[in-house]
Amino acid sequence: MRIITFLSDFGNQDGYVGAVKGVLFHHAPKAGVVDISHEIRPFQIEEAAYVLMSYYQYYAKDTVHLVVVDPGVGSLRKPIVVRTANYFFVGPDNGVFSYILRSEANTVYEIDAAKVRAYNFGRSISRTFHGRDLFAPVAAFLAAGGSIHKLAKKLDGAPVVFDDHLKAGMKKVSAKIISIDRFGNLITNFSKFEFDQLQNVRITDIEIKDKRLEGLQPTYSAVSQGEVLALWGSAGFLEISVNRGSAAELLKAQPGKTEVVIHLKND
Amino acid sequence: MRIITFLSDFGNQDGYVGAVKGVLFHHAPKAGVVDISHEIRPFQIEEAAYVLMSYYQYYAKDTVHLVVVDPGVGSLRKPIVVRTANYFFVGPDNGVFSYILRSEANTVYEIDAAKVRAYNFGRSISRTFHGRDLFAPVAAFLAAGGSIHKLAKKLDGAPVVFDDHLKAGMKKVSAKIISIDRFGNLITNFSKFEFDQLQNVRITDIEIKDKRLEGLQPTYSAVSQGEVLALWGSAGFLEISVNRGSAAELLKAQPGKTEVVIHLKND
Amino acid sequence: MRIITFLSDFGNQDGYVGAVKGVLFHHAPKAGVVDISHEIRPFQIEEAAYVLMSYYQYYAKDTVHLVVVDPGVGSLRKPIVVRTANYFFVGPDNGVFSYILRSEANTVYEIDAAKVRAYNFGRSISRTFHGRDLFAPVAAFLAAGGSIHKLAKKLDGAPVVFDDHLKAGMKKVSAKIISIDRFGNLITNFSKFEFDQLQNVRITDIEIKDKRLEGLQPTYSAVSQGEVLALWGSAGFLEISVNRGSAAELLKAQPGKTEVVIHLKND
Repeated sequence: MRIITFLSDFGNQDGYVGAVKGVLFHHAPKAGVVDISHEIRPFQIEEAAYVLMSYYQYYAKDTVHLVVVDPGVGSLRKPIVVRTANYFFVGPDNGVFSYILRSEANTVYEIDAAKVRAYNFGRSISRTFHGRDLFAPVAAFLAAGGSIHKLAKKLDGAPVVFDDHLKAGMKKVSAKIISIDRFGNLITNFSKFEFDQLQNVRITDIEIKDKRLEGLQPTYSAVSQGEVLALWGSAGFLEISVNRGSAAELLKAQPGKTEVVIHLKND
Repeated sequence: MRIITFLSDFGNQDGYVGAVKGVLFHHAPKAGVVDISHEIRPFQIEEAAYVLMSYYQYYAKDTVHLVVVDPGVGSLRKPIVVRTANYFFVGPDNGVFSYILRSEANTVYEIDAAKVRAYNFGRSISRTFHGRDLFAPVAAFLAAGGSIHKLAKKLDGAPVVFDDHLKAGMKKVSAKIISIDRFGNLITNFSKFEFDQLQNVRITDIEIKDKRLEGLQPTYSAVSQGEVLALWGSAGFLEISVNRGSAAELLKAQPGKTEVVIHLKND
Repeated sequence: MRIITFLSDFGNQDGYVGAVKGVLFHHAPKAGVVDISHEIRPFQIEEAAYVLMSYYQYYAKDTVHLVVVDPGVGSLRKPIVVRTANYFFVGPDNGVFSYILRSEANTVYEIDAAKVRAYNFGRSISRTFHGRDLFAPVAAFLAAGGSIHKLAKKLDGAPVVFDDHLKAGMKKVSAKIISIDRFGNLITNFSKFEFDQLQNVRITDIEIKDKRLEGLQPTYSAVSQGEVLALWGSAGFLEISVNRGSAAELLKAQPGKTEVVIHLKND
């Protein structure tokens, strides 16, 4: 039996997560269900996409990664499964799998709601809670070894992915803060994965608010206590940090508002 | 082996939850222990009673639902087990099982502290932590397939249930906000289960603060973005919401303070 | 297979905890992984040391307790394993295991990073995330029944422990608040374990802010609702509480700032 990881923006104070886990265990009683986080900021797809990149690759082959950050639940956005060489990803087609789709060979399937309903004890599919009624049964079915073709078919057209903001020859790039972690580190949407596709380019300076940082540091403690630095975070995204302090507090930075400008040089 | 779900107001920052889980695994090493939430607001029995209704029915038969929101710990309130056709519920007799007791056939048992102590390695029962010393051993014993008669006897008298606030012929009902979820939805104690027992009655308007909402909507997106609506939430309680926004923020509503008036019409 | 408990200050909003659990399950697929808390205040070693004392002893023999509160990650602090009669403790050598080291016979091992890297699929060891790259593989290896000698050797010298602040003959002791739990109880670093080593001494009064409390109470409800009291908390640390209220709010107390003075009398 396989592991199902579960990431959402449901919060930890209600029964939403518990309901989803009930469905998972009901259909896949021997699976391991692993809570990743349910504290993604409500509806923040980019934050979920980043957080997913920080853990998925540490799980064994055939792990099912369930991701439910789904502001468009009840609308026309499609429910999908992304199959890569090693993993299944189950969730809404709203960009949350952008980085996976860009970095790994994959096939994308569209979930068939009628088939899921039949599989899930005939329970109707609530218009507000696809995590419980649509995604969880599919994740459990796959974890129990079921064939994806029984509940889904190949997606017509391309899945949703975030715009690529890096282009050859650029002198500077404007990045967004997509997450602030518990230590006050500011995580941007500037990823090492995308940066490495540019050839012979290096980062010279990073601007944030009135600070201008020279290049990247290898570790927090490369600067004095209380100093601001930039580095590649452990998931491969450019991060603004303060050694033993909070960059969010010191810089009064806010996700989606504070701009980070990265200056590049072609060698 | 069975699953034990665990709901409490212990919070996630201390070792309380960890101690309870240690006792559970010690006695039922093969059981699955599923955290539901430990962020019920301290001592808020009504919130726990509502949250319980949102997940318990998604678990397989014979799952043990452990619920510890227990402001009267150390007082005379009784420790109980509620047995229904499909589930065990373990916790204090303080109303937290009200909705279960009303909606399902059941037998209620009173836990025998002396027998639990003997079963639980002879450990004494702290006066401040029955979750660890009294309820957890019982939950684990049941999950390991033990007979309830070995640790409990039938309850003398009736268990505690919340007052029923719905009566035939009422023109309006005053409901309370008992929980605010992460998305700012306001959950009231007006349940579909109880409402459906009134015959030929429909809801005409819902009043909250200076708003008057006409009837219920089928889904959040039935109104424009930013608009207030009322709907049946996924656990079957009347909920005041804002499409893609926070009703709690918009209406400055507070649990236990803000009144919600539901107008009824007999057809 | 054994259980691995996991305590950290990583928070629940990111993928850090999920990455660590991926490594644990990858190496020990049949182990049970139990989240204790990831809400230790960032870098608060004393809080983690106290929380550890509240749960470790409720787990079955040979449980592996993983504790990652590690402000010195990337510096020269050593990664260690503490082996006691019943348990393994894995984490940084920064005092977090002080109370364990003082209260139980033990042997301390220093983890060999090169051997861990070879064991952990050759993955390099990030300078900012030893929880994932160094401590998790060791915890999983031990949970899978591996011999500690394969990844660690005996520690040269003594491990780091907090200063002992109790001495025979003292008339008063100044204690620190090291944690505030969800109910607003103030937990001090004055432990019953250490106090009991003083012979024929009793506590007469406890001072906090402008309050002077006479002795300890057996339970919260020993005083009137809203009254301040002192008692031994469930983990054996002296705690300042308010019956059915929040001592933190009432006394405006803060961890590390508010002083608690305990007056002793030699009999």
